[in-house]
Amino acid sequence: MNPGKEILKVIDCDVHNQFRSNQDLVPYLKEPWRSHVQKFGWHGGGLPYASPIGNKRKDADPPSGLPVGADPDYMIEHLVKPYHIEYALLNSDSMISISGFADADYAAAICSGYNDFFIEEWLSKSDHYKGYICIATQDPLEAAREIDRVGSHPDVVGVVVVGGSRAPYGQRLFHPIYEACVRNDLPLVIHPGAEGGGIFNAPTAVGYVSNYLQWHTCLPQTYMAHLVSFVCEGVFEKYPSLKVVFCEGGVNWLPPLLWRLDKNFKALRASTPWLKRMPSEYVRDHCFMTTQPIEEPDNPKHLLMMFEMFDAENMLLFSSDYPHWDFDDPNRILQQLPLEKKRKIYYENAKKLFKLK
Amino acid sequence: MNPGKEILKVIDCDVHNQFRSNQDLVPYLKEPWRSHVQKFGWHGGGLPYASPIGNKRKDADPPSGLPVGADPDYMIEHLVKPYHIEYALLNSDSMISISGFADADYAAAICSGYNDFFIEEWLSKSDHYKGYICIATQDPLEAAREIDRVGSHPDVVGVVVVGGSRAPYGQRLFHPIYEACVRNDLPLVIHPGAEGGGIFNAPTAVGYVSNYLQWHTCLPQTYMAHLVSFVCEGVFEKYPSLKVVFCEGGVNWLPPLLWRLDKNFKALRASTPWLKRMPSEYVRDHCFMTTQPIEEPDNPKHLLMMFEMFDAENMLLFSSDYPHWDFDDPNRILQQLPLEKKRKIYYENAKKLFKLK
Repeated sequence: MNPGKEILKVIDCDVHNQFRSNQDLVPYLKEPWRSHVQKFGWHGGGLPYASPIGNKRKDADPPSGLPVGADPDYMIEHLVKPYHIEYALLNSDSMISISGFADADYAAAICSGYNDFFIEEWLSKSDHYKGYICIATQDPLEAAREIDRVGSHPDVVGVVVVGGSRAPYGQRLFHPIYEACVRNDLPLVIHPGAEGGGIFNAPTAVGYVSNYLQWHTCLPQTYMAHLVSFVCEGVFEKYPSLKVVFCEGGVNWLPPLLWRLDKNFKALRASTPWLKRMPSEYVRDHCFMTTQPIEEPDNPKHLLMMFEMFDAENMLLFSSDYPHWDFDDPNRILQQLPLEKKRKIYYENAKKLFKLK
Repeated sequence: MNPGKEILKVIDCDVHNQFRSNQDLVPYLKEPWRSHVQKFGWHGGGLPYASPIGNKRKDADPPSGLPVGADPDYMIEHLVKPYHIEYALLNSDSMISISGFADADYAAAICSGYNDFFIEEWLSKSDHYKGYICIATQDPLEAAREIDRVGSHPDVVGVVVVGGSRAPYGQRLFHPIYEACVRNDLPLVIHPGAEGGGIFNAPTAVGYVSNYLQWHTCLPQTYMAHLVSFVCEGVFEKYPSLKVVFCEGGVNWLPPLLWRLDKNFKALRASTPWLKRMPSEYVRDHCFMTTQPIEEPDNPKHLLMMFEMFDAENMLLFSSDYPHWDFDDPNRILQQLPLEKKRKIYYENAKKLFKLK
């Protein structure tokens, strides 16, 4: 038997279901928002950057004429079957930017309508579909209620929030969200979306970079700050069963950040008396990262060397980011990894984390 | 001969001369600022974080009774002689936060007074002292005039600006500063200081972390954004002789950032038609990083592996950060490096970059 020929089972942890139109949510909204969206559409936080190449795969147009990523049946044919994907974990990229909108009630109403639409029009369409419900971060107590409302649906496997934020996610104002995640046994998933738009903080620590290339390159900054905040604020001591997935933000910034954090903790831990272990130990036990877009050093060995510097084989989860422009093909990335590690990253880690059957 | 016994010559690229008192600058200021500072002292941008352990070495008190780091003669005895430092490159940490002050005229006046004080009361005190003049970034044209005013002094070897900023440093508003650096043949040195204070952007991409431990851990974010901005805005095409030193921000975040930047550039370079080479090539040829605080992975081999992933032996410059709490002892860090690389990092790279005799 040639193990190189084994067809790997895949759980794809970041697949983006798109809207057919801005009116998709109308039947799922309550007044006054239903009439409003009917007249004016709905709006997220807005992003002051545009990709020079568009942001969808050019080959993913469904024959149905629906927009790319908006046809649940075609996604089965175009993504799930050819790549042997057992579960596609659906994740609305456009919806999460609603947390950048200033009106918390509006944002909560849109999220709530979306979650009903999502369960009805996506999760029910195929046994291969599971996914993440959306919440709006402006009002964490309301977000917690929304998690309690729909989080127990059997096809819901996580709660997604956006990377952009006015405050780092470890801070206490967000804790009701984590209580609800734990109560519903759902990991928190963080995904980029509209960083720097709407009411979000500027997308880097020195304000607004000039274009999409720079913005996209700097996206891991939100994750670095959220991760440091989660650990140092003691979130993982307070919620020992909470798991957090950092989606689509790269992975290799992690080792140097943890070296810096552990080193600083040794000297400065007087400020965090609630921490009982080294910061990196909390990260190893509570945090996961999806692979796409995987870094591609000129020397492929450097990626393997980097994977030795953190618990990559247990912390990484495969994702393709379908149908986005920077889709990672499961048959083309991470080819240099030993099969045993690939099995974990492509399938076993996600199966365990999301409790998939 | 045992090469381990060789006493390495050292150029320390980040030594912090401190003020004796808030009144040191008074004789060097023009009115109306002289009277103002005499009455009220002077103020930088202010930082909303305090270290739980103070920020100076506890053993560095001069017998003269002056504050730690404020006695030029004692610094020769306590730092320069025992560590075989050929040149201590002096760098005022407290001064640079002036760029966080809203009043650009005030900030420029304080910087100007400081530079005269610095040349007179520090650089003239020992042949071992060279250093960086300070500029205020609020008014780049005025900053350029200040570089022209004092930049040709033979003991001035660089121009220091602060990491905190309202905008990434590659953007065009800052270009007059780089023109002046190039005109005076001086590298630009960036050093952390009061990130998140005054008019600076929040210190992370998601706003204000809660305490000094988190703030200090997240400091490299400003550098990552500045570096991406320098490259993508074409600063190194426009000023081919400009060199930039990233001081005290860690070093090992660089390889994963460059992987991400190069990868994105391949897809998105339509937005930066002025770039003629890969982003990482500009960084290799124009950027330097000081070593302190060097990351300390549990497995020391990981540091060496990381150093293979960028041109560490040519881009790193030794620094101790004397007299700060996280001082790196040249006899204790980087012991696992081969002697030839240590010679470059401890001495030769800085000698060449700063054109020291």
